Amino acid sequence: MGISTIVLSMSVLVVVLGLVGSDPDPLQDYCVADTKKGTTENFYYNGVPCINPKIVDTSHFATSALSKPGKIDIVLGFNVTLATIFNLPGMNTQGVTMARIDIGPNSLVSPHSHPRASEVAILLKGSLLVGFINTSNHLFTQNLRPGDCFVFPKAMIHFLYNKDSKVQALVVSGLSSQNPGVQMASPAAFATTTAMSEEVSNKLFQINNQDVTKIRTTLGG
Amino acid sequence: MGISTIVLSMSVLVVVLGLVGSDPDPLQDYCVADTKKGTTENFYYNGVPCINPKIVDTSHFATSALSKPGKIDIVLGFNVTLATIFNLPGMNTQGVTMARIDIGPNSLVSPHSHPRASEVAILLKGSLLVGFINTSNHLFTQNLRPGDCFVFPKAMIHFLYNKDSKVQALVVSGLSSQNPGVQMASPAAFATTTAMSEEVSNKLFQINNQDVTKIRTTLGG
Amino acid sequence: MGISTIVLSMSVLVVVLGLVGSDPDPLQDYCVADTKKGTTENFYYNGVPCINPKIVDTSHFATSALSKPGKIDIVLGFNVTLATIFNLPGMNTQGVTMARIDIGPNSLVSPHSHPRASEVAILLKGSLLVGFINTSNHLFTQNLRPGDCFVFPKAMIHFLYNKDSKVQALVVSGLSSQNPGVQMASPAAFATTTAMSEEVSNKLFQINNQDVTKIRTTLGG
Amino acid sequence: MGISTIVLSMSVLVVVLGLVGSDPDPLQDYCVADTKKGTTENFYYNGVPCINPKIVDTSHFATSALSKPGKIDIVLGFNVTLATIFNLPGMNTQGVTMARIDIGPNSLVSPHSHPRASEVAILLKGSLLVGFINTSNHLFTQNLRPGDCFVFPKAMIHFLYNKDSKVQALVVSGLSSQNPGVQMASPAAFATTTAMSEEVSNKLFQINNQDVTKIRTTLGG
Amino acid sequence: MGISTIVLSMSVLVVVLGLVGSDPDPLQDYCVADTKKGTTENFYYNGVPCINPKIVDTSHFATSALSKPGKIDIVLGFNVTLATIFNLPGMNTQGVTMARIDIGPNSLVSPHSHPRASEVAILLKGSLLVGFINTSNHLFTQNLRPGDCFVFPKAMIHFLYNKDSKVQALVVSGLSSQNPGVQMASPAAFATTTAMSEEVSNKLFQINNQDVTKIRTTLGG
Amino acid sequence: MGISTIVLSMSVLVVVLGLVGSDPDPLQDYCVADTKKGTTENFYYNGVPCINPKIVDTSHFATSALSKPGKIDIVLGFNVTLATIFNLPGMNTQGVTMARIDIGPNSLVSPHSHPRASEVAILLKGSLLVGFINTSNHLFTQNLRPGDCFVFPKAMIHFLYNKDSKVQALVVSGLSSQNPGVQMASPAAFATTTAMSEEVSNKLFQINNQDVTKIRTTLGG
Repeated sequence: MGISTIVLSMSVLVVVLGLVGSDPDPLQDYCVADTKKGTTENFYYNGVPCINPKIVDTSHFATSALSKPGKIDIVLGFNVTLATIFNLPGMNTQGVTMARIDIGPNSLVSPHSHPRASEVAILLKGSLLVGFINTSNHLFTQNLRPGDCFVFPKAMIHFLYNKDSKVQALVVSGLSSQNPGVQMASPAAFATTTAMSEEVSNKLFQINNQDVTKIRTTLGG
Repeated sequence: MGISTIVLSMSVLVVVLGLVGSDPDPLQDYCVADTKKGTTENFYYNGVPCINPKIVDTSHFATSALSKPGKIDIVLGFNVTLATIFNLPGMNTQGVTMARIDIGPNSLVSPHSHPRASEVAILLKGSLLVGFINTSNHLFTQNLRPGDCFVFPKAMIHFLYNKDSKVQALVVSGLSSQNPGVQMASPAAFATTTAMSEEVSNKLFQINNQDVTKIRTTLGG
Repeated sequence: MGISTIVLSMSVLVVVLGLVGSDPDPLQDYCVADTKKGTTENFYYNGVPCINPKIVDTSHFATSALSKPGKIDIVLGFNVTLATIFNLPGMNTQGVTMARIDIGPNSLVSPHSHPRASEVAILLKGSLLVGFINTSNHLFTQNLRPGDCFVFPKAMIHFLYNKDSKVQALVVSGLSSQNPGVQMASPAAFATTTAMSEEVSNKLFQINNQDVTKIRTTLGG
Repeated sequence: MGISTIVLSMSVLVVVLGLVGSDPDPLQDYCVADTKKGTTENFYYNGVPCINPKIVDTSHFATSALSKPGKIDIVLGFNVTLATIFNLPGMNTQGVTMARIDIGPNSLVSPHSHPRASEVAILLKGSLLVGFINTSNHLFTQNLRPGDCFVFPKAMIHFLYNKDSKVQALVVSGLSSQNPGVQMASPAAFATTTAMSEEVSNKLFQINNQDVTKIRTTLGG
Repeated sequence: MGISTIVLSMSVLVVVLGLVGSDPDPLQDYCVADTKKGTTENFYYNGVPCINPKIVDTSHFATSALSKPGKIDIVLGFNVTLATIFNLPGMNTQGVTMARIDIGPNSLVSPHSHPRASEVAILLKGSLLVGFINTSNHLFTQNLRPGDCFVFPKAMIHFLYNKDSKVQALVVSGLSSQNPGVQMASPAAFATTTAMSEEVSNKLFQINNQDVTKIRTTLGG
Repeated sequence: MGISTIVLSMSVLVVVLGLVGSDPDPLQDYCVADTKKGTTENFYYNGVPCINPKIVDTSHFATSALSKPGKIDIVLGFNVTLATIFNLPGMNTQGVTMARIDIGPNSLVSPHSHPRASEVAILLKGSLLVGFINTSNHLFTQNLRPGDCFVFPKAMIHFLYNKDSKVQALVVSGLSSQNPGVQMASPAAFATTTAMSEEVSNKLFQINNQDVTKIRTTLGG
């Protein structure tokens, strides 16, 4: 149950980002996202169309989306709220975005990577154990206290763990892309929407089918 | 007095950043800044050299530099603390950084631009009037309450003004460059370290020399 | 009166550039700008659409727009003529443009920056005092004679001043973007199309309201 | 045993790549890698230094490194041979590399991503089941026959599986970076060189310690 | 006869690529090329539009286009088959492509450059003499045997020559752009579709008109 | 004789540029080229090292190198003078440069490409026939009068021809790279410093050895 919820939860994040993108330099002062084009006019390209610059106003550059803690999933114990082209359309083409992450007591934002972004996180409340794994498979971990920052290098697998049993943690992150993307590390191999074929799973974990099924069940796949 | 202090204050920020830079894609997992090379070995290039990857440890990716309010300048009424390659060397080559800005009651972070970065700011405490000016000289302003975010598009002149007479404001920003740079808008024309020649100042403001001197004095130049 | 004219004059330049952009690598041999798309078909994105490559001809790569001195504004005393996607559509996606600048006797192209371009200028006629201000607020100035070149680094505030009381100066510049953009330095804070609120102006200049009004009047705001 | 061998095997690949990088445009005709600088002169930066252009010769642009099947690991059943700056120094700064992958019968190149590269693979011998997982956690799989190509989008988790029980498969890939990097998907969470703390593992898999230990043992961690 | 056939043959390659492009970073997981937009809807921009992400399936990432030797032109003696957005639409925005080149006995792929790509070639069958010319006009040549790789640096003029009188050669190349482009070196000056004016040809070769005509005839122009 | 002189002449240009490069975004305000590093300290990388920012002065951003007509080669009839990191070191990392081209009566700047730059040229004196060839081998030509501009798209083969028998032409160009590079089109195949092997030449031109020799002699190879 847990993992499919992670997947679901992350998918929401991802569906929202489904057709966005674009981190080249902005090519004019701003290009306020026209979030209707892709749905009603069925036009897609490498990035997001803009609205007519003449109708841009200051509200396009402001959002209250990050002002409240997102609803924390009961199973997962955390919530990620991201500034996207939908709640902050003026951020389109600017090559940066911001996220708030609320992590319940004793909860883990499990290992994942952002294919298109580096991340600098600041812990605002609570305490965290964070870490990332480099391509030599070396793990770097750090305990953070309020006010501490940590860098997760671009596309590296990382996690955030609130070991405290009582205090909810609050993190704000700056990310180097308007569409960082999220790819879960281990659950991805278990619980893709089209389940990976049994033979690949078996081979991958070098254990028999029953064990895979058992792990999948345990993980909620 | 005021302006020269701004200039001084901003210069500190700038001197710190004096030889850093580099926002192409990271070319390996990380390139932890070797902040001594430029001073002791006198080697400079378009970016910052790294330390031997074998001696990298987790401390290079963490910093407490933003954990406390910076000392607010009496005259200016605000303070900017930036994560740099000096306090967060693992951020080198990652194309993103973070800043905390403490703004005293009734104080203004005066109009400036970041030549190499877009900025997404989140207001954590207090209230602010923020704004930016596009290249058609149109002003966009917005009142922010805690939790609100605002985008300052790349290289556009912007300001943050704490109109409240009692509450100090706290902002955290994500910026799309490891070395955003700061260029003050109007004071720049008045108070360069090598004072701009009188004739240029006169011409610029189309007023006579005494008036320029008066304004410079008023502005602390 | 003067400043509002600068603003107006610069705005013309800017309106022309209003929806252009794009300095990534060209992605095909050429992408001749379709300057009608944005107006008649209401389509905008990070850059400019192209015409059907089959109807491209040699005229799209040529222009006489820079062949004559632009009309010099009586108040400002200078004129900037830029090769844009409107007069030179084949320049779209090529990451470079050219400008001619005619500067009347005793006239100043006042401090401004190009958010998206570096500039190399060559003086063809007359004499000039040019300069730029770096992010440490240090001023670099140089007197130019015909044939001399000067580099204005990317997004740095710079100016060109024709101190000669009789000879008009002529400059040709190469710029590292098809849409450099222009942002005036000090006037920007005074004379935005939506006037900056009085309280911000007061705070910015730390002088009282009457003085601000006086300066604004002097500057034509 | 299996997984630690994968990790070891991949680490060899990674150690070789440990200090390379750089995929901006080449800034001169070529910049033949000086692979000694980083070791003997202890100089590191975002990329790799070049040798004196005067001593460049044609051998720097040629390699026989991919001409023979690499030694296939007994446990893993596959081998990856990559053109690197060490065996093909003229490839430095060119933004592309090539790999040959030999996959034994019934063997799996387990799910992994390349943080810095897209990949186009062509199957030269044998048959394969290949697949990748997008950030919405959707799995795309395809059976390949000799001569078939497949695209693994940038930084997406993918795998190659030789289901045939007798024929060894041979793949040649073009990659969009001189230093693609490799990050294993699920094993990464289990078998980092500094083992992830027990509590994180427990939390991650939401099963108890004995089970984690069991899986780790099964996986060779 | 020969050259016009080369031109024709290369043109086919080029026409196919006529409206593609785009090698910035992918801005979402993938952007599967919508190859009909440019023809039926007459929409062109710096790159290629995508199909609705919801209808993407695995077939968009696979192709058999390179599985068989292309038809070798009788006169030219070689054939180039390229993975393009038409036969491999999922490759759009990924910044890399693959080509297979079949070169008949005693045949030459004459000097040409790829304006937008570096190339790493691997010889799979036969033997070849390959070479490139740098911007100092220095020639680098190398004899390749099966399994050997060679780098052609970005935009440098290069050639591949099968000196063997009996064995057909087979090459697979990875290229650092989805739309490398091809520009023939010397024939380009002789046999443009709109023939270069006689006076330019004469001047170019500093020989008289009859000689130019003779060479053109010899070269098939 | 003619061609080897072209080659020689262009080589001078190229040798000067031999170790320069770098057109990513500037990573600090400026990075004034340290042109001694590569020769005395034998340090090379993808770009050019900078001098200590503390010793930068205004002279680094100015040059008179383009103020006078270069010496026109008697045989070739033209001269190219380029702003380089040697005569204008402050231009390093700014992604743009400028050239002046003096073309004698009845002289041709023969077909060549700039592998790393687009070019916008303005004719200041005389008259010219200019043209470029796209990758579909289509020729675009245009007659220019003083003040006319023409775009040569990135890496496309182009030429400039002064058909006038009396008036010397003067062109100033802006180029989208600090190190455009020059690659001659047809002469490149004839007169490389290491002569291309006879068999390749024979094959290339599909004429016999004597004819190749004759052409080479005619062309001065």
